[in-house]
Amino acid sequence: MSFTDHASRFKRLQSLQESNGIDAFLLTSAHAIKWLSGFFYNFETGPSPFQLLPAVLLVVPGDPMCLIIADNESFTAPTNGLEISVKPYVSYVHEKPLDFTSQFLIQLHEAITQKKLTRARIGIEKVSLPFVVAQSIILRYPELEFVDVTLELSSLRMVKDPDEIDLISKAAGLCDIGQEAVLKYAVAGMTELELFTLVRGSIETAAGKRIPMMADMVCGSRTAEGGGNPSEKKIKHGELILSDLTPCLNGYWGDSCNTIVAGEPTKSQKDTFNLVKEALEIAVNSIHPGVKALEIDRQMRGHIGNFPHHGGHGVGTIYHEDPRIVPYCETELLPGMVIALEPGVYNDGYGIRLEHLVVVTQAGCRILTRFSHQFELI
Amino acid sequence: MSFTDHASRFKRLQSLQESNGIDAFLLTSAHAIKWLSGFFYNFETGPSPFQLLPAVLLVVPGDPMCLIIADNESFTAPTNGLEISVKPYVSYVHEKPLDFTSQFLIQLHEAITQKKLTRARIGIEKVSLPFVVAQSIILRYPELEFVDVTLELSSLRMVKDPDEIDLISKAAGLCDIGQEAVLKYAVAGMTELELFTLVRGSIETAAGKRIPMMADMVCGSRTAEGGGNPSEKKIKHGELILSDLTPCLNGYWGDSCNTIVAGEPTKSQKDTFNLVKEALEIAVNSIHPGVKALEIDRQMRGHIGNFPHHGGHGVGTIYHEDPRIVPYCETELLPGMVIALEPGVYNDGYGIRLEHLVVVTQAGCRILTRFSHQFELI
Repeated sequence: MSFTDHASRFKRLQSLQESNGIDAFLLTSAHAIKWLSGFFYNFETGPSPFQLLPAVLLVVPGDPMCLIIADNESFTAPTNGLEISVKPYVSYVHEKPLDFTSQFLIQLHEAITQKKLTRARIGIEKVSLPFVVAQSIILRYPELEFVDVTLELSSLRMVKDPDEIDLISKAAGLCDIGQEAVLKYAVAGMTELELFTLVRGSIETAAGKRIPMMADMVCGSRTAEGGGNPSEKKIKHGELILSDLTPCLNGYWGDSCNTIVAGEPTKSQKDTFNLVKEALEIAVNSIHPGVKALEIDRQMRGHIGNFPHHGGHGVGTIYHEDPRIVPYCETELLPGMVIALEPGVYNDGYGIRLEHLVVVTQAGCRILTRFSHQFELI
Repeated sequence: MSFTDHASRFKRLQSLQESNGIDAFLLTSAHAIKWLSGFFYNFETGPSPFQLLPAVLLVVPGDPMCLIIADNESFTAPTNGLEISVKPYVSYVHEKPLDFTSQFLIQLHEAITQKKLTRARIGIEKVSLPFVVAQSIILRYPELEFVDVTLELSSLRMVKDPDEIDLISKAAGLCDIGQEAVLKYAVAGMTELELFTLVRGSIETAAGKRIPMMADMVCGSRTAEGGGNPSEKKIKHGELILSDLTPCLNGYWGDSCNTIVAGEPTKSQKDTFNLVKEALEIAVNSIHPGVKALEIDRQMRGHIGNFPHHGGHGVGTIYHEDPRIVPYCETELLPGMVIALEPGVYNDGYGIRLEHLVVVTQAGCRILTRFSHQFELI
């Protein structure tokens, strides 16, 4: 995270602070914390039995941010002038009984007192704030007030800073590697799961570490349902394979989808593939600053007919965020927004969905996923 | 889940209800919900942007349980007489703006009213209960009272029912497959990550689906640190490989650890391996109903000297739960408790840890992980 980029996020937060008369923010969601501080918690193995929360970020615009993390988490503060004061709390010690809730609350109360917030108006995220934390604050400081800022934060996160676009591009690079691996390894006779293992292996080898990942990887009639987890189903010759790969690299997500055929496509399959590819190209070409999200959605449906899911969505520290490319979304696109576009056609027998990830630019948009949508195996 | 087994859990919950004067339980943690209802949410891709919570379980002992889940989750109620009323809430519809928080709360309030709990004393889990849910209940029903039952639930979950032991055994079976794969595939020259891909692939092929998994997979000097995620580090000839595999199958965890050598072991390595193996055998043989957890811990440290982590821990719907095999834990072991035992020796240059998962029986204990701890490659 560069200092300039971070200053831009901070400035936006400051305008939210001023317009809502907020003194401080108490952030508890992983995605908001990543966005503002750079701290990423790998969620792949579920909530830790040794933590109240992986992290809480207390932000008073103008002051150094205060990041309270469990002492079994690691965090290296950026070395670019961004000031973060890290307060670790005792999470697990095998010699003594667990006490992480109190240990966390002690650190939090110390931070609230130090920052003189005992009568403040504090912006919170009402879904990720645990009851025990809220209750403890309310009891101790009856004059402190909570204001939910979930929607406002979501709106602030829509336009990405250059460092965020860089991080998302790197995650998109893992999508490219995954989609290339699908074309390289897919062969009739293997199961969806076997293909998935090879694809994820390629992605993790490229990343040099484990990568949390959502993935639709389905073949044959399952493609008509639009997706699903890889199963023991064997890929038969001539069947389609739909691969929607959504990896998370250091807290930022990529997104991509391709549909291929394990053998010779029928004419109708080939025509459908080309139709969906055109719809995606139309969407890409329709993007420019000022166009409404719903207009991009309409363009895709206009070309291929209606389909039973969104036309796309924002991508950042959440894999599906604002703006949504859906029939109701009046949001005007702005440079820096990162959007996944994913038109699809689902017939009785099969489905084809193609997806690219793009960033809105002054001139239109730039495609972040660089793989090409290829229908037939290499 | 069999009806008898479930009745046993319900009965224990009822005794908690009576001793604490509680009218109902509002369960929000994934592990307590799995334990009581069988509903499992796969956490591998983090919190869903379309849900307030994956599930909430409202339990009035004597009544059918009420499970509120997002409508993009699937749940098949057991067909054994266990009555669960499922209330789905609207999570994501691409034609209309997101409204899951309200949709969830509408269902919850309807359930509270139907069950006449507006003035009840309700047992909650204070860490996993979101502020927005608590606030909404408190505002609407000022006479309703919350009582945190987190510790009591943890205690109730310690003794496993036969259906739970069966589920944990199946997860332990995946550990066996993983440990066998380590011995089969490990070879000098490959990276920790490449080995991990092959091992997880074997586990997922056996399970027929993706399996969430914690894993230490480290070689050489990293084994002296006790663990860590698989990295790009290449396994060199003669280095040790420590593999702690902790897969989650349908909401229940397995746990296992082996340490092997990629080549010929030195005499000192072989001696250390045998010493740790003896410590594990001593621990297994020390287990019987009535023995204190700390006594098992003491036996291991007595044989191999002190080591910088617990001697073991309970395993169930959490990978690390009560009772803990640690110096302070006075809990007396009871038949049905499932415990991972994991003594280790960490020298300057390398570390060796060996782990088995056992269930306490009337006569002593039965080992659920069936692989044998083998030091040298096949």
